[in-house]
Amino acid sequence: MSEQISSGFLIKQRAFLKLYLITLIENKYLYGLKLRDLLKDEFKELGFQPKHPEIYKALHDLMEQGIIYQRKEKKQGTVYQEVVYYHFTDEGREKASAYKKLLKHELDRCIHLLQKAVKDNFY
Amino acid sequence: MSEQISSGFLIKQRAFLKLYLITLIENKYLYGLKLRDLLKDEFKELGFQPKHPEIYKALHDLMEQGIIYQRKEKKQGTVYQEVVYYHFTDEGREKASAYKKLLKHELDRCIHLLQKAVKDNFY
Repeated sequence: MSEQISSGFLIKQRAFLKLYLITLIENKYLYGLKLRDLLKDEFKELGFQPKHPEIYKALHDLMEQGIIYQRKEKKQGTVYQEVVYYHFTDEGREKASAYKKLLKHELDRCIHLLQKAVKDNFY
Repeated sequence: MSEQISSGFLIKQRAFLKLYLITLIENKYLYGLKLRDLLKDEFKELGFQPKHPEIYKALHDLMEQGIIYQRKEKKQGTVYQEVVYYHFTDEGREKASAYKKLLKHELDRCIHLLQKAVKDNFY
């Protein structure tokens, strides 16, 4: 995966959202609207509310990278309502795990950079 | 100061550099080339090397906000060499201190957001 996960400064929003989407899909929060609503509120208290298009772009990135695919299915317990579910592809779990490893390293780097700024400028 | 210090996600590079410039000027690293070279190498080990134009844009922002001004002076100990020094304006120290207070809050918010992502996705 050759995409840029950082701007050279801090992690990009897109990479951050993809990380969360992978974890949510691992944990079976599988359908689009649910993923979107979860992410929209997850960081509210920390002043960050990802916009819908950003979340969908992150989902599409994961599809383009062959990590997940979407399938329209009837919503459980309903007769007519169709929703878009997301599943890992055959090789998706392995790719996702490699991506998460990269991101863990990137998050740690960013935390160190910001902690350094606090130390250098305030103590 | 009504500028955006964050993208809504994480702190902007410009705000981050302005914070360092203020602290460096407080600590008397006053002239342009020196400021630039210090910042260029300060975060190298953490994978971040701000580009020269970004550093100069941050300096210009601080001038436009009336926090600092520049003055060409002879470099100490030389006869001919002129360098650009930066000083706080009369009201600059107070403005700078208000800006730093904002930035402290923003850095803390970003650290919490990234630490949350580590916790949510890796443990």
